[in-house]
Amino acid sequence: MVVPIIVSAPGSEDHAARLGKQLNVPVAELEVRRFPDGEFYCRLHSDMRGRDVIVVSTLDNPTDKFLLVAFLAETARDLGAKRVGLVAPYLSFMRQDIRFHPGEGITSVYFAKLMSSLVDWLVTVDPHLHRHPSLAPLYKIPTAIARAAPAIGAWVKANVASPILIGPDAESAQWVSVVAKEIGAPHVVLEKIRRGDRDVSISQPNVVWGERTPVIIDDIISTGRTMLGAVEQVVAQGAPAPICIGIHAVFADAVQETLMAAGASSVISCNTIKHGTNAICVSQAVADTTRALMRAN
Amino acid sequence: MVVPIIVSAPGSEDHAARLGKQLNVPVAELEVRRFPDGEFYCRLHSDMRGRDVIVVSTLDNPTDKFLLVAFLAETARDLGAKRVGLVAPYLSFMRQDIRFHPGEGITSVYFAKLMSSLVDWLVTVDPHLHRHPSLAPLYKIPTAIARAAPAIGAWVKANVASPILIGPDAESAQWVSVVAKEIGAPHVVLEKIRRGDRDVSISQPNVVWGERTPVIIDDIISTGRTMLGAVEQVVAQGAPAPICIGIHAVFADAVQETLMAAGASSVISCNTIKHGTNAICVSQAVADTTRALMRAN
Repeated sequence: MVVPIIVSAPGSEDHAARLGKQLNVPVAELEVRRFPDGEFYCRLHSDMRGRDVIVVSTLDNPTDKFLLVAFLAETARDLGAKRVGLVAPYLSFMRQDIRFHPGEGITSVYFAKLMSSLVDWLVTVDPHLHRHPSLAPLYKIPTAIARAAPAIGAWVKANVASPILIGPDAESAQWVSVVAKEIGAPHVVLEKIRRGDRDVSISQPNVVWGERTPVIIDDIISTGRTMLGAVEQVVAQGAPAPICIGIHAVFADAVQETLMAAGASSVISCNTIKHGTNAICVSQAVADTTRALMRAN
Repeated sequence: MVVPIIVSAPGSEDHAARLGKQLNVPVAELEVRRFPDGEFYCRLHSDMRGRDVIVVSTLDNPTDKFLLVAFLAETARDLGAKRVGLVAPYLSFMRQDIRFHPGEGITSVYFAKLMSSLVDWLVTVDPHLHRHPSLAPLYKIPTAIARAAPAIGAWVKANVASPILIGPDAESAQWVSVVAKEIGAPHVVLEKIRRGDRDVSISQPNVVWGERTPVIIDDIISTGRTMLGAVEQVVAQGAPAPICIGIHAVFADAVQETLMAAGASSVISCNTIKHGTNAICVSQAVADTTRALMRAN
């Protein structure tokens, strides 16, 4: 049997190296250059013939990354790869999953269709599924989801003596409840009260804090508004300074500083998007999920 | 019959407006927003049902533009468009058309394959065809090429009393000879002498200059090295200060300044890529070509 091989897109080398170690699979030697007009050149120096190829590329700032992923997959295939899959620790274009207003593009459907035409399978970490229960209605290829909850749970257990887990809104319940169960900690889910497109507040938690440290968990921290609302509510109740955990550190400018200024004791994230807040490694879950998907398909 | 409609990608509004005027076709109202993670939102406020849709997007810096073009095409189709074509005044990824070294990705093939899966036809201006005689071996969809030569010829005729046209290398002959014929001016094509990957010089023209103004014409000015070599040879022979014309102003930083410092009297380009040097409008050729392709297919 030919050993699989990993091809890492620029910027995802850390992830690729960790995944390679977990799966005991080599990482291909890749050359990528940019031309003045933003075009790029790619060359794979490793043998692709007959191999199962795992392209690793996280997909924040996807407009910059998509074409390279597409071309790496095509190049590997052109060079004789048997099958080409994609490990995207962060999967983009998951938010617009229906047409809210007439004329809108349903970008999650279009992105999935494009990806499905380029790779044979996809693994990601906790995608922002809202109206769809899984990736299956979007992607025509086999997909599998690695869960960050065990790694987050292990981190909380190791770092917080007496935690109470908090989901800032109903959507976050799916992640918070699993982490809570994982480590046997109490949890509470707040409510988003929406008065307009930009006028959103978070409900007050009904909690007796005592010595319990609030650990607020959400999947994506982007503008940070939801997380900020939760921090403010918790702090207003006189709770100990909360810890903020986001799975995906999309992070608009200065979000971390804003959360700290509002009273958070720390802001941390999983390593699905490279960021200064990365403190929780999800590579084992990614490796286990990838291995299982490759065996089953 | 339903009137066609133009959808302009951000950055191509000028082109779209000129094309709309030439074709007597309206430009759709489009809303595009960017999120902090580089994702975007798009919404078409005009009716697409049953229409022939012309997406206009030039494709320099293609990694930034490709996904939006893809999503605009998908959205238009989703909203009932009968057919969706693309007018890309500059077409990218035309240079890597074979595998020069083992392991290289043949990006022009991959890009054409992707585009062919997204739109029903394609119009561009003078693509950088080298080893392929036309776009047909690359694109599976109907394609047509608008020629910049008539507009360049008209500009030279109107602005240069006694021109001699110069092609800086053999590849440029295809453009220079046509412009020369168009206006009945003499032309000469220089040779590229390559001693290594970066050691390239341009042959001396064998010309008696007299009062003739050298007009150096190439399809793409990117790093500007080829154009610079030609300017230097011409200036070294004591010719009048040359005018540099590029069809596509890809322009790495400071190319214009370098050419002027070397003795060029001006550096101008066609409006296929928005740039300060744009002085020659190719919209009529684009409109004529688009009209003919849409009627024939």
